[in-house]
Amino acid sequence: MSDALIRGFTDTEFAARTEKAQARMAETGMAGMLLLTEAEVRYFSGFHTLFWQSPTRPWFLFVPAEGKPIAVIPEIGAALMRQTWIEDIRTWSAPAPEDDGISLLTELLTPLAAKGATIGVMKGHETALRMPLGDYERLVAGLPGLSIADCTGIVRGLRMVKSEAEIEKLHRICAIGSHTFAEVPSLAHEGQAFEDTFRAFRREALLQGADDVPYLVGGADQGGYHDVISPPSRRPLQRGDIMMLDTGMTWDGYFCDFDRNWAIGSADDASRQAYDVLWRATEAGIAAANPGTTCAELFHAMQSVIAELDDAGGDVGRLGHGLGMQLTEWPSHVSWDHTVMEEGMVLTLEPSLSYGDGRIMVHEENLVVRSDGAELISHRAAPELPVIS
Amino acid sequence: MSDALIRGFTDTEFAARTEKAQARMAETGMAGMLLLTEAEVRYFSGFHTLFWQSPTRPWFLFVPAEGKPIAVIPEIGAALMRQTWIEDIRTWSAPAPEDDGISLLTELLTPLAAKGATIGVMKGHETALRMPLGDYERLVAGLPGLSIADCTGIVRGLRMVKSEAEIEKLHRICAIGSHTFAEVPSLAHEGQAFEDTFRAFRREALLQGADDVPYLVGGADQGGYHDVISPPSRRPLQRGDIMMLDTGMTWDGYFCDFDRNWAIGSADDASRQAYDVLWRATEAGIAAANPGTTCAELFHAMQSVIAELDDAGGDVGRLGHGLGMQLTEWPSHVSWDHTVMEEGMVLTLEPSLSYGDGRIMVHEENLVVRSDGAELISHRAAPELPVIS
Repeated sequence: MSDALIRGFTDTEFAARTEKAQARMAETGMAGMLLLTEAEVRYFSGFHTLFWQSPTRPWFLFVPAEGKPIAVIPEIGAALMRQTWIEDIRTWSAPAPEDDGISLLTELLTPLAAKGATIGVMKGHETALRMPLGDYERLVAGLPGLSIADCTGIVRGLRMVKSEAEIEKLHRICAIGSHTFAEVPSLAHEGQAFEDTFRAFRREALLQGADDVPYLVGGADQGGYHDVISPPSRRPLQRGDIMMLDTGMTWDGYFCDFDRNWAIGSADDASRQAYDVLWRATEAGIAAANPGTTCAELFHAMQSVIAELDDAGGDVGRLGHGLGMQLTEWPSHVSWDHTVMEEGMVLTLEPSLSYGDGRIMVHEENLVVRSDGAELISHRAAPELPVIS
Repeated sequence: MSDALIRGFTDTEFAARTEKAQARMAETGMAGMLLLTEAEVRYFSGFHTLFWQSPTRPWFLFVPAEGKPIAVIPEIGAALMRQTWIEDIRTWSAPAPEDDGISLLTELLTPLAAKGATIGVMKGHETALRMPLGDYERLVAGLPGLSIADCTGIVRGLRMVKSEAEIEKLHRICAIGSHTFAEVPSLAHEGQAFEDTFRAFRREALLQGADDVPYLVGGADQGGYHDVISPPSRRPLQRGDIMMLDTGMTWDGYFCDFDRNWAIGSADDASRQAYDVLWRATEAGIAAANPGTTCAELFHAMQSVIAELDDAGGDVGRLGHGLGMQLTEWPSHVSWDHTVMEEGMVLTLEPSLSYGDGRIMVHEENLVVRSDGAELISHRAAPELPVIS
């Protein structure tokens, strides 16, 4: 991967995304989509900033039936938005609790309301309303002719299938993640406070080229860890611990999301067996990740291996998911998700199981669905539980 | 600050927060508050995880009129929630788009709906609805007797005033931030790609003891930067650049939020003058940050100095804000915010101005409001624009 890999996307890519969205909007009779969330605003505009960390200000991007999206944003973002392909940028001096963009939106949407049009807002699974609910209710009440439909399906359909330019970024961050995990045996050691293992891991990730490490969780305990979303404690790593680190690093706004397991000093038989089962479950998942197969079928392929040890499959709720601008995206590898895999989808495989006395183990890899099957973009975990001595 | 500083809070602190909330709920006739957001769930429960990075699953904490809060959460979080002071933990196997907690919430709220009770949901300024809007609408439609009121004011009133235990954490992360900024002259140099300056800064922050650096933005350009929320480019730092870095680092879930400015090689007169004005505007802010003074008065104290150079005060919308579990919190230092400052509030002072040909400069410091005035918790910026040679 070249260091010269270019950040951002061409205007052509944003135009293509917008046109695809508009084609689907036309099919469903939507006169536009009002988007509020970081990933969606960035997907259609290229507006990329960590300023979303501040919950104070709402940001709006309206994708009309034809033409470029229209940005309705706080003035503090105008200079950055002007660097994107967006031309129509309407701003207000935010924060302004009495009118945080509402009159600008009302002005924009009034002609559509007058025609009794329908616009889309994301209201579906894995979404949130990133503006004050009170403001949203006032906006809608002030536009009585306007119908609001759920446009989650349109956005989901587009975002689930990645372009080659997106896949390049995902390739890069997965390589960075793999190189970082490869250094763990030299970063982590018996007696190290687990909190310091996290700190060393984050520093290594940055050295390897990650822009940021927004997600790092893990577990470490004698003969297996007990939960998979905790922050680290000051407890020192001990001989006989099974340690897991699960990370979502970013490069240019795209995430990797995978984990690795190690034994500290020595590995107990139960953990070695759990590891072996999950490693083979992942193999079954890789073999099943083909265009035309459903996520439910992928789930069952992995679950049939996990069932050798555990009928419940842990209790993390699913065995993997989509990956891209967010740590977790649609679809889900679960029995109820019949999404058909397509070329260009980027997915995690995340088999897990419960074993012993309330212990849990999770494996995770990242892949791209290609015409001839899965292309792994994380470097495959070792086939046997590695021991850090 | 001792390394032994303890993470988390005592159960007593969570009980006190809950009782204060319940007292305010009683005053306004609320039978409970349904909370959905990371900061609020953590504030009342102690549930602390980076897993909120995943947008897939909603999380609910219900604060009843009396007794401990009740958690309604995905099963994947149960083990971690059981480590908190919360006893009543109701879980479901998420994700489950058909019923992501809605039937559990309906069961919980039905007795209140039957009595025609009012519960609070945060609908006000600086909030978002962190669950699918469609699910929220279905939940409310299924509880026709229930009234929903906005409880933003109650939560805002509590969270704005920090306990000493919270202030200790803010002290610590501000010290870490200050030590990191102190290293910048040895990390940054002419010819360095600005992106690499960011990477070196993040690594130093971790070395100094930050858990994470969720926010890092900045600017660098000849004779001044042009916007304050951009990610870094590959452009190398050049002699005559004015560079600004603004960071929100965390320790145990609490943020610092301040910035520093430097000239690379040499500083132009206009930038030195802008720096001097903002440094004195910050002094005016520090002098005005007293119990009994309003945020509007604090704003005017700073603005009257900024006006020496710029009537508009930049266009970032305000001259500082609250700070705590989020990078930016209520209140805002603006002419319309008449919040009266109280002992224990933790605030940023963030004067900014426009100068020259579209350049902008921002200063920022963090402080605690004490009975005898402001206690600065960031190490005060140098009185003259520092030059990195």
